Amino acid sequence: MSEKKRYNVAVVGATGAVGQKMLETLENRDFPIEQLKLLSSSRSAGLKMTYKGDEYVLEEATPESFDGVDIALFSAGGSISKKLAPEAVKRGAVVIDNTSAFRMAEGVPLVVPEVNEGDIEHHQGIIANPNCSTIQMVAALEPVRKALGMKRVIVSTYQAVSGAGNEAADELRDQSQSFLNGEDLEANILPVKGDEKHYPIAFNALPQIDVFQENGYTFEEMKMINETKKIMHSPDLPVAATCVRLPFFTSHAESVYVEVEKEGVTVEEIKELMNNAPGIVLEDDPSTQTYPTPLSAAEKKDVFVGRIRKDLDEDKGFHLWVVSDNLLKGAAWNSVQIAERLIANKWL
Amino acid sequence: MSEKKRYNVAVVGATGAVGQKMLETLENRDFPIEQLKLLSSSRSAGLKMTYKGDEYVLEEATPESFDGVDIALFSAGGSISKKLAPEAVKRGAVVIDNTSAFRMAEGVPLVVPEVNEGDIEHHQGIIANPNCSTIQMVAALEPVRKALGMKRVIVSTYQAVSGAGNEAADELRDQSQSFLNGEDLEANILPVKGDEKHYPIAFNALPQIDVFQENGYTFEEMKMINETKKIMHSPDLPVAATCVRLPFFTSHAESVYVEVEKEGVTVEEIKELMNNAPGIVLEDDPSTQTYPTPLSAAEKKDVFVGRIRKDLDEDKGFHLWVVSDNLLKGAAWNSVQIAERLIANKWL
Repeated sequence: MSEKKRYNVAVVGATGAVGQKMLETLENRDFPIEQLKLLSSSRSAGLKMTYKGDEYVLEEATPESFDGVDIALFSAGGSISKKLAPEAVKRGAVVIDNTSAFRMAEGVPLVVPEVNEGDIEHHQGIIANPNCSTIQMVAALEPVRKALGMKRVIVSTYQAVSGAGNEAADELRDQSQSFLNGEDLEANILPVKGDEKHYPIAFNALPQIDVFQENGYTFEEMKMINETKKIMHSPDLPVAATCVRLPFFTSHAESVYVEVEKEGVTVEEIKELMNNAPGIVLEDDPSTQTYPTPLSAAEKKDVFVGRIRKDLDEDKGFHLWVVSDNLLKGAAWNSVQIAERLIANKWL
Repeated sequence: MSEKKRYNVAVVGATGAVGQKMLETLENRDFPIEQLKLLSSSRSAGLKMTYKGDEYVLEEATPESFDGVDIALFSAGGSISKKLAPEAVKRGAVVIDNTSAFRMAEGVPLVVPEVNEGDIEHHQGIIANPNCSTIQMVAALEPVRKALGMKRVIVSTYQAVSGAGNEAADELRDQSQSFLNGEDLEANILPVKGDEKHYPIAFNALPQIDVFQENGYTFEEMKMINETKKIMHSPDLPVAATCVRLPFFTSHAESVYVEVEKEGVTVEEIKELMNNAPGIVLEDDPSTQTYPTPLSAAEKKDVFVGRIRKDLDEDKGFHLWVVSDNLLKGAAWNSVQIAERLIANKWL
């Protein structure tokens, strides 16, 4: 009798916004877990979380925590990944890292399964999960690139606060209530926890996600630019990004302009490509006001595409509206999906 | 002794979101009013409003209401403008119309004073005030166009609910409180009052402003495209727009990509142009997290520009973040400004 092989899985940063979704996703996917270990900082150690009805006590993550672990899902911040991911690998685990720590490192595959699943095969212990806003964009653009070629991408994002963690979501909730009560707004977290200035997010828009780089772009913008080139194996693809934090809790939306190589492409052809693409759901019918929104995409694992229009001046230019749950396809689901592909392809 | 000439002014649609700001702006500018007439639909007739401490009773707007009026500021919807603006002109008034009724009509100047003040001179009675999202964009782009030439514009907007009127603002307020209370959201107004479907705006983003056109673009997007060409006297300028309604009350923000004609332009040159442009305030310093936001621009009449970056691939490409109070520069202030220029240039 063949029995499905099961794996020892560690989740690092289980109490965070993404960590919670990791557990939910592993449970919903009925992931073949032999033993589950929930790891955290010393601050959260001792807390309890539930998985499939069983209670688990969080342990402080140490190098030894990874003894016997097959797959470690990291989502506890870049510094913890930098310190502990190599320790986990040394002990035989494959790490799927949701932080930016190793994404651009050579030899580390940066993977969105719908785009570059094959890159997983060449991992050396660490596989990086891309930035949330990058994942949904490349998933939506890959069918276009594959069929029509791609000359350039310009994106403006509309990003949910949960991308900055549970504290940011709490801040939006508190500030929104204060605003409605006519009280002053207190800002301590957004746009970037630990940065020098904080601005209210409630009933506002902040054109800063992550810290500013020397070149005037934010780190989030540079992540979208550089990660897209790496995932798509297109180091010379021109990509431009403007990233904006907005007052909603879940799902990032993106206004994407793409220029294809092929001439004379129609909107219907792009729609057809989307309809046949894995992980993509086309929601696009102006005649019935059908398009995705952050609320409609929340808690779903697909990437939703709508508002597909041909540019009125550039024959090769198209505009798309791309929406996805930033904690699912943008983080937890993409990580678990990588783990599933690892197993299915015997690349563990 | 010279005494400042004074004018009989009518405000049509005084109780609306823009009408209220018209009165505020006329008062703040100490506009030379001899007699003020507040006009409205029959529904609002009889209501009272205050101007400079005096109470005014709203009268129902009829053709005869404009007898003796010098300047009529219309902001009561396209159908009222279509019906009554020609009647006002027949009676000797100059109409400054804030609706879309006459904007693209030949012989009607469409004016943003910082861009094409001279067009006012050739009016035939009606001068159109452009769409709010167009005004702030062309005001910010004009110094660029003038100094460096302009090859193409791609904009994604972040628009406040007050652009859809007081009812839309009330809907955002009510839905936000319901959401925070954990209750269901009731949607009756947005994205477009009278359109078939309504979606919640609270903690959401709606990629539809105004109704869809045959070509898949919304009317708001086509307004930005067509009005920009007309205001800038550039019928062949490629302009693309994606317009999105967001959960904040005041100020539109825009992520604008512009390609200039000139080679080798630097960010510092663009900043310098902005610093010297009328009506533009540069708020741009990544080192101190300085950039405009909808909340910081609200209740101010200027157009704020920040996040100016050179495209990393296209030498002639630049990205800008443009924010302005949609009810002031986007509507009331631009209208009053046109009236002031009319008088100052003796073009009445």
